[in-house]
Amino acid sequence: MPETSGPLLPGSTIGVLGGGQLGRMLAMAAARLGLRTHIYTPEADSPAGQVAARETAAAYDDEQALIAFAGSVDVVTYEFENVPTATAEILSQHVPVRPGPRALSVSQDRLAEKTFMGDLGIATAPFAEVDGPDSLANALVEIGTPAILKTRRLGYDGKGQTRIDDPAQAADAWEAIGSQPAILEGFVDFEAEISVIVARGTDGTTAAYDPARNDHKNHILALSTVPSGYGETVEAAARHLAEKIASTLDYVGVMGVELFVASGSQDLIVNEIAPRVHNSGHWTLEACAVSQFEQHMRAVAGWPLGSPQRHSNAQMENLIGDDIAAWRQLAHEPNAGLHLYGKGEARPGRKMGHITRISEKS
Amino acid sequence: MPETSGPLLPGSTIGVLGGGQLGRMLAMAAARLGLRTHIYTPEADSPAGQVAARETAAAYDDEQALIAFAGSVDVVTYEFENVPTATAEILSQHVPVRPGPRALSVSQDRLAEKTFMGDLGIATAPFAEVDGPDSLANALVEIGTPAILKTRRLGYDGKGQTRIDDPAQAADAWEAIGSQPAILEGFVDFEAEISVIVARGTDGTTAAYDPARNDHKNHILALSTVPSGYGETVEAAARHLAEKIASTLDYVGVMGVELFVASGSQDLIVNEIAPRVHNSGHWTLEACAVSQFEQHMRAVAGWPLGSPQRHSNAQMENLIGDDIAAWRQLAHEPNAGLHLYGKGEARPGRKMGHITRISEKS
Repeated sequence: MPETSGPLLPGSTIGVLGGGQLGRMLAMAAARLGLRTHIYTPEADSPAGQVAARETAAAYDDEQALIAFAGSVDVVTYEFENVPTATAEILSQHVPVRPGPRALSVSQDRLAEKTFMGDLGIATAPFAEVDGPDSLANALVEIGTPAILKTRRLGYDGKGQTRIDDPAQAADAWEAIGSQPAILEGFVDFEAEISVIVARGTDGTTAAYDPARNDHKNHILALSTVPSGYGETVEAAARHLAEKIASTLDYVGVMGVELFVASGSQDLIVNEIAPRVHNSGHWTLEACAVSQFEQHMRAVAGWPLGSPQRHSNAQMENLIGDDIAAWRQLAHEPNAGLHLYGKGEARPGRKMGHITRISEKS
Repeated sequence: MPETSGPLLPGSTIGVLGGGQLGRMLAMAAARLGLRTHIYTPEADSPAGQVAARETAAAYDDEQALIAFAGSVDVVTYEFENVPTATAEILSQHVPVRPGPRALSVSQDRLAEKTFMGDLGIATAPFAEVDGPDSLANALVEIGTPAILKTRRLGYDGKGQTRIDDPAQAADAWEAIGSQPAILEGFVDFEAEISVIVARGTDGTTAAYDPARNDHKNHILALSTVPSGYGETVEAAARHLAEKIASTLDYVGVMGVELFVASGSQDLIVNEIAPRVHNSGHWTLEACAVSQFEQHMRAVAGWPLGSPQRHSNAQMENLIGDDIAAWRQLAHEPNAGLHLYGKGEARPGRKMGHITRISEKS
């Protein structure tokens, strides 16, 4: 469908694919601006549906439900990058889908993503394509060990990947990831991971928040800290990279760009991009006048972007699984924003909420 | 119904009477904490219902609907002080209603309110009870002119009141307010109106935000500014008054206390109290880690209160009626939080949204 011109009027409806915590915070941000949301999700009474004007509970391949959904909204966006291609195609015949198909195709496939970065002259970890045991053997010669074998598609939070320390482990590794198209990635010697939340509007303007330094635990983001501790040179370079990626993709919305800071040189190496609001940007809810969630909805609605300026320092801590049991104590903390996602069961590894502690800006 | 002990667990449901913008912002604040809301309102698809897990559209005197509503929630609160007494009574037979009946009875009746303040030794405008033409004549002798005749019940934003400059206008004034039980109020010589948003928890702790200075236009709040411009002595006295009122009422929730600052002496005179979140506290959304809306929901849910500390200076501007037409320009402003309430029609005098501009704390 051709893109509409001009901003959506207040009272318009933004459709969101996905009913998790990101959709929930997107729906609340839209509501602040007088925009409605309609959540499309396989599970009824989803965290996002609980705060949205409307919820459709249907499968992502239910063509009839998708067409009805498209007819009820003015634009569609999503909270996760693994939107099936067919789903996006059906919807885009009826209503604009933002971010557009190129962002999805690049970010859904680790090989396409790394190739895209290479074409832009942006550094990534060394990598090689793997489509079977033979090419894995060749890749191990090229990349060396230790290395990580990752499926090209559907990986997040450390799933769909396995470490190879010795070429003798190749066959087991290939089986461990399900014998799927993959890439082999070499290790990067990095001293930190930082991330930039960048937004791009329908008019092509971009706005990048200050980079956060990210610390992980069991392959899941544990802490995001702003300021990152790196100086203006590194931070400006990180913002610039993120803006370049968004512009090249003709992107509309908010994107998370994860970067490694190389040990010693402090060169920046792109780890991955997420074509959506990002866990490492939750701190913007407390520390900026316009959060990443509102920024995304502004972009998707064709509104002017908000300023990404922050008024405070911030540290976001994820509440994973049983961490949530401490909610009473956490609620006592001053200068902190506590967020619980309305999920029923605190399974291990499940993101149940987060808390952002703010302090005077430095 | 006896009060429950202990905090509501995440996933519990808070019932809210009223579907306007205050209910909307309450519902969003509850969602942040993993609490659901169920909105009870006469109009379907209300601003609050659009962001709540559930909405019941029924009249406030629909006993059957009220009982079903009470059965579906863990506690009931409200966004407006004119909850009919019968409604509150029906609900409170089934579920805790917070704030409790005393706050409602005091704030619904200007005579009860002023008498309550007098009993506490808190200054108000001079007043006299008026129940007919004769007592109005006597009151005019006692209070003098100019004076304002106000209905005892159901007044807000300058409605239900009329000014009397000369005793000869008495009969017309009595008719103008509908020949209802009233009070006659003398004028207070004040240099400013300030307000304190105070919260009290189920455990009796109180927390007061910094006072805001309020400026009105056509009897409707136009601007609230923090800091108020008054020094710590005046501000501490204002906070203390508000906390005293909340404690005396055995209040649970957030209350707005409007105060006049007397010309010259800077003595504080209570104008009125509102047993709910208050328009002059909207700035807390941008300038504090815990907003008045979250604070109210914390109190009502039996949670610990958040810190009322602010990290920024703030000025909130109401968007009344056609002001909303400027939303595109307002969305461009940096360091500002724009809020549109999802109301269809921009009638004159109707609160359509607000914007809060923040700056470095002073």
